[in-house]
Amino acid sequence: MQLKNDFNTVRKRSMHICAPLKTEDYVVQPVVDVSPPKWHLGHTTWFFETFLLKPHFPGYKEFDPNYNFVFNSYYETVGARVIRTDRGNLSRPAVEDVMRYREHVDKAMLSFLDTPLSDELRTLVVLGLNHEEQHQELLYTDIKYILGHNPLMPAYADTAVDTYQTPASDEPFVQMEAGLYDIGYKGDGFCFDNELGRHTVYLQQYSIATQLVTNAEYLEFMEAGGYTDFRHWHAEGWDWVKTNEVRAPLYWHHVDGQWQQYTWQGLQPVNGNDPVCHISYYEATAFASWKGLRLPTEFEWEAASAQFSWGQRWEWTESAYLPYPGFVKAPGAIGEYNGKFMVSQMVLRGSSEVTPPNHSRATYRNFFHPGLRWQFTGIRLAK
Amino acid sequence: MQLKNDFNTVRKRSMHICAPLKTEDYVVQPVVDVSPPKWHLGHTTWFFETFLLKPHFPGYKEFDPNYNFVFNSYYETVGARVIRTDRGNLSRPAVEDVMRYREHVDKAMLSFLDTPLSDELRTLVVLGLNHEEQHQELLYTDIKYILGHNPLMPAYADTAVDTYQTPASDEPFVQMEAGLYDIGYKGDGFCFDNELGRHTVYLQQYSIATQLVTNAEYLEFMEAGGYTDFRHWHAEGWDWVKTNEVRAPLYWHHVDGQWQQYTWQGLQPVNGNDPVCHISYYEATAFASWKGLRLPTEFEWEAASAQFSWGQRWEWTESAYLPYPGFVKAPGAIGEYNGKFMVSQMVLRGSSEVTPPNHSRATYRNFFHPGLRWQFTGIRLAK
Amino acid sequence: MQLKNDFNTVRKRSMHICAPLKTEDYVVQPVVDVSPPKWHLGHTTWFFETFLLKPHFPGYKEFDPNYNFVFNSYYETVGARVIRTDRGNLSRPAVEDVMRYREHVDKAMLSFLDTPLSDELRTLVVLGLNHEEQHQELLYTDIKYILGHNPLMPAYADTAVDTYQTPASDEPFVQMEAGLYDIGYKGDGFCFDNELGRHTVYLQQYSIATQLVTNAEYLEFMEAGGYTDFRHWHAEGWDWVKTNEVRAPLYWHHVDGQWQQYTWQGLQPVNGNDPVCHISYYEATAFASWKGLRLPTEFEWEAASAQFSWGQRWEWTESAYLPYPGFVKAPGAIGEYNGKFMVSQMVLRGSSEVTPPNHSRATYRNFFHPGLRWQFTGIRLAK
Amino acid sequence: MQLKNDFNTVRKRSMHICAPLKTEDYVVQPVVDVSPPKWHLGHTTWFFETFLLKPHFPGYKEFDPNYNFVFNSYYETVGARVIRTDRGNLSRPAVEDVMRYREHVDKAMLSFLDTPLSDELRTLVVLGLNHEEQHQELLYTDIKYILGHNPLMPAYADTAVDTYQTPASDEPFVQMEAGLYDIGYKGDGFCFDNELGRHTVYLQQYSIATQLVTNAEYLEFMEAGGYTDFRHWHAEGWDWVKTNEVRAPLYWHHVDGQWQQYTWQGLQPVNGNDPVCHISYYEATAFASWKGLRLPTEFEWEAASAQFSWGQRWEWTESAYLPYPGFVKAPGAIGEYNGKFMVSQMVLRGSSEVTPPNHSRATYRNFFHPGLRWQFTGIRLAK
Repeated sequence: MQLKNDFNTVRKRSMHICAPLKTEDYVVQPVVDVSPPKWHLGHTTWFFETFLLKPHFPGYKEFDPNYNFVFNSYYETVGARVIRTDRGNLSRPAVEDVMRYREHVDKAMLSFLDTPLSDELRTLVVLGLNHEEQHQELLYTDIKYILGHNPLMPAYADTAVDTYQTPASDEPFVQMEAGLYDIGYKGDGFCFDNELGRHTVYLQQYSIATQLVTNAEYLEFMEAGGYTDFRHWHAEGWDWVKTNEVRAPLYWHHVDGQWQQYTWQGLQPVNGNDPVCHISYYEATAFASWKGLRLPTEFEWEAASAQFSWGQRWEWTESAYLPYPGFVKAPGAIGEYNGKFMVSQMVLRGSSEVTPPNHSRATYRNFFHPGLRWQFTGIRLAK
Repeated sequence: MQLKNDFNTVRKRSMHICAPLKTEDYVVQPVVDVSPPKWHLGHTTWFFETFLLKPHFPGYKEFDPNYNFVFNSYYETVGARVIRTDRGNLSRPAVEDVMRYREHVDKAMLSFLDTPLSDELRTLVVLGLNHEEQHQELLYTDIKYILGHNPLMPAYADTAVDTYQTPASDEPFVQMEAGLYDIGYKGDGFCFDNELGRHTVYLQQYSIATQLVTNAEYLEFMEAGGYTDFRHWHAEGWDWVKTNEVRAPLYWHHVDGQWQQYTWQGLQPVNGNDPVCHISYYEATAFASWKGLRLPTEFEWEAASAQFSWGQRWEWTESAYLPYPGFVKAPGAIGEYNGKFMVSQMVLRGSSEVTPPNHSRATYRNFFHPGLRWQFTGIRLAK
Repeated sequence: MQLKNDFNTVRKRSMHICAPLKTEDYVVQPVVDVSPPKWHLGHTTWFFETFLLKPHFPGYKEFDPNYNFVFNSYYETVGARVIRTDRGNLSRPAVEDVMRYREHVDKAMLSFLDTPLSDELRTLVVLGLNHEEQHQELLYTDIKYILGHNPLMPAYADTAVDTYQTPASDEPFVQMEAGLYDIGYKGDGFCFDNELGRHTVYLQQYSIATQLVTNAEYLEFMEAGGYTDFRHWHAEGWDWVKTNEVRAPLYWHHVDGQWQQYTWQGLQPVNGNDPVCHISYYEATAFASWKGLRLPTEFEWEAASAQFSWGQRWEWTESAYLPYPGFVKAPGAIGEYNGKFMVSQMVLRGSSEVTPPNHSRATYRNFFHPGLRWQFTGIRLAK
Repeated sequence: MQLKNDFNTVRKRSMHICAPLKTEDYVVQPVVDVSPPKWHLGHTTWFFETFLLKPHFPGYKEFDPNYNFVFNSYYETVGARVIRTDRGNLSRPAVEDVMRYREHVDKAMLSFLDTPLSDELRTLVVLGLNHEEQHQELLYTDIKYILGHNPLMPAYADTAVDTYQTPASDEPFVQMEAGLYDIGYKGDGFCFDNELGRHTVYLQQYSIATQLVTNAEYLEFMEAGGYTDFRHWHAEGWDWVKTNEVRAPLYWHHVDGQWQQYTWQGLQPVNGNDPVCHISYYEATAFASWKGLRLPTEFEWEAASAQFSWGQRWEWTESAYLPYPGFVKAPGAIGEYNGKFMVSQMVLRGSSEVTPPNHSRATYRNFFHPGLRWQFTGIRLAK
């Protein structure tokens, strides 16, 4: 019963996120990292059809056999698929077809959830819902990119979504003692395989900031020539700056002598008190270097996470995305979920303004290539 | 009065071509050469607004100043514009916005056409209509590409558009005598600047085919190993074959041991009697070489054009696209129309199944890079 | 006897051209269009070994079977080969090995030339010598590129090679009457297949310059903003200017407020009286457009070639490289010589300061892609 | 005195490594990761000239001011430089010029070492020697690539360099207890900044192999379809396999039904008892996954390094290259040495057959991108 409720809640929320869009907004893919919203809506549906309904619900009638080719993301186990760069080249299935696909699968899933399910299958349903919640975060991220890179810079919504009350705090840094800490998920709820297994690490004494770096602080870095002084940058970060002619966070525009940023309400003056957003790992580490500080490791972050407020920005850490001791891939297609990405990416901790409710926890590990910044990323410093 | 009628006829025809599309089909750009249908609809409208209404119709109110950036194609004179590869990344203006743009401009143009106009302005209106007719041809071409490269291969229309009656002919070749021939447009009607000035050429004796090469003949070439024998190909054509792994005309698919082709009605068996279509210059010359023949020059084609039936396929010639003696660019933006493309392209003569009525004439010069084949191109042989 | 003399003369001249080089200069390939000098020396030798000695000289012992892979340029008929971009990655065969290869083949060829040879084989030897002379021109061209793009800009020779006496002339233009002219090679000597067959063309009345455009005239174009005004450029020429940030001819450097150019003697001030050199087709046509003139066609050039002095620069024409009427490829590997390049290239006429003596004639057709300028190219105007 | 001896020993060893080369072998750069041997010889010399002689040896006369541009590797502090991909395009300075440069700098350095030097300068000299030793390893690595990718596959030396005696060992795995271990360099000798500061880590119980994986074991993986089963690979590793069509370690060739590998003596049959070499991180982890095991972390490796024999192969670890706690960049150009590469690379531990004597220690951290395999890399398993 709870599972049916959760299913309905999550599935409706995806539709709610897309409600302000025009049909055309569902279709485009301005860069390879962004997927068209209709693709997210189809792919999350395909997950339930492919891993639950087709193998486990006798009598289920597949909506359209061609959809496996269109909506498979990266599961080699499940066969051929549209190459990633082609997602924005597909006008069909049309948005209305994808909506009918969702209705078809939702109806079947609700019947399926009325049947007695093994623990293993219930776990798979929960994984499917968490998977859809991850894509909800991506939906927001990709929608912002699609609208924010359109020359007309249309608003997504009229009312503010991203205004913050920076929490008051007496102390800018919390000091943590050297010693042994336990890392990784513990409990009975859902977590991803990359949060297991729980293990002990030894940390040296360190301090971690209670606040995120603000736009005002970041502007100081910019005005001090941060983007033109190679000494603060990794070698490949410096190449990235020069190749892409980067001189400000993503979505910032210098208009009539003033820094503005594209927001859900369109172009707005940059608010100095807001935490800086949409910066790459390269920028985060360059800023930290300029400050004479550093980023925390993901272990330092997790060990101290009860000592500060988080949840506004995905926070870059100085840890590469690698398996925990004892990490084991699940067999079959589900085993392709996390493990195969454990190289050349950096870990982000926390969650962001667009993370679904109840989808964040202190042990959650997000990960991206160091040059990506269309996520709602930010900076917390350590020393 | 005639001009108003022509204006209405042409403008409505663009809408008619797009009528079978879904909103999503208006948006995508699967390869750089293809433009989204809504871009064609906006760009042809922008032409009238930019070159007629804004400079010459006092009191005209521009629909949206941002549209100049979105709908300028390549006119450097008229300012910055969306880079070509980004046309398919734009979800806005939405299709309904583009339709309102068309209505706004159409209404103003009809008022404008009621005022007394100089000959020069009337000529510019006619140019705008011919420009839109060129884009109507591109609309068909691009729509076929968009639908034909979708993994679902949806049909554009239920009824056949491209069935042919190959005209009966007693003689496969017409012989033309050596001598002087006049080339280029002559008359009072509309023509493009690249068809001027009319001039004399000397042609050696030659023969030219009365029929286009058929699918059946082209299949013989394929089955004889035409795509694997470098001897028939230009060096860059051979690279093109290998790089793109070409082994059949565009839209051909080998399904269950049979050659099928994507048509307006979806996937259909290849009809051996139809003239072969969607082939590159490289393929046309390789086929001719395999036959021990050659393509005609554009001058040979024009001089003999009264001797055979044409109009089904754009026909590749062995002539590069270069200015006629005495060619002069028009001043201003209109001067960017043809002259600046006169390098690295080959001339096509005739017209095709998707050419607007009254838009074809024997002196018309179309031109494309030798590797392109999304046009309705075909082969006529000479010797 | 004459053929043996010619053979010795040509083969020695290749060695003479390379005499000023250091071993290292024989090895590198700074851009794909340039081949390492040792490759030219090996490839021209391979031609004689492959097309004459191995098939036609009984008892000939191949120098090293691996060399076919290394020194085949583009003859698909003769098998696999080092890809062009890898030529500069090969340290072996060493220069001394290539010299021994030349000696081995030269010795065999001289014995072979002492035997009675059919006319066909004699013709093939002459083709081999003309082929080597073409590569001698490329040797100069490539050596200049290798040394001129080295940051140390070393001189090739101490004494001047490229000083000119611009011929005095009363009239800047020669006028040619409209009428029929014969084009193509006529005579008993050697010519390439692309100069055949001789045929009649009709030319309109035209005028052609008696002088090449000088550095001083070209500087006027530069100072008038020629490289920043899109109106003078082909669309793809304008892209070429912007992509490559071109603002002067190749080898020109703005040093301490003065234009200098890399010459055989190292960096030297630009001499205003010299004909401009190392410019692309795009630059040549942009200059002509700025002057309100045009380039001649290759037919206009050939018909008037007795009326002016030529031989300092390869001169761009407004003609694309296409087959003459009646052009026939030779069978076998030799047939790959010219015909397969007859697309997407422009014709140059005349010859240059580095053309071997006796290797130039009024009917000679050279050809390059419009963006290349490492050849000794120049501009002659027409109207 | 010891420092002078060390200086002489190290500098002579670079020359000794290059002794078997032909002049041409010093010049080429077949892929961007490989540098021409003459560049290594010049760059290591430039280090002494730039960081010691020019700033600290009054009266030193710079050999050639242009050499800074040619031989600077990546030090932004020291100014503009030849872009990396151009190193193989430079025929000058010639090899003999580089040799004269070495003699010039060696002579000056020996005089300089006779003067009283501060501890800081002595440390800088030692860094320069360790820097040259790193390049000696690269010299071997790059020479093997240059010769091994030449179609003639010439031998580097007649006598065997890389025959191994796999040490006998009773137990395939050593078990290590969970607990605290100290990591990082401790002592008075030389170490790189990335080995500091020494710090405590907590390790779970683990086992580590006493032997490296052999060619015979790796062949089993290949024959079991290891290169065609995506399940063993990281997503980007799988892309790497497909894009590069990888199906064996670098330098392996399947000849006449047998696996051979390019060695210092030319092509030789693969010896099953030798440790596998020249494999990427992707291949190392795929092999481990196929075995149901994993790679050790760099901390596990260092903590257990006294328990097994090492020194034949650089061994991939499962650790990304990141700063140790308390890592501090040195000020100035020397600070660009290691820190700026601490992103997107994996750590290798141990040393290889081409590591200079006395240049290896258990705390040494090498690092490469996961797809590179021209180093002498190998696999040690853990569980």
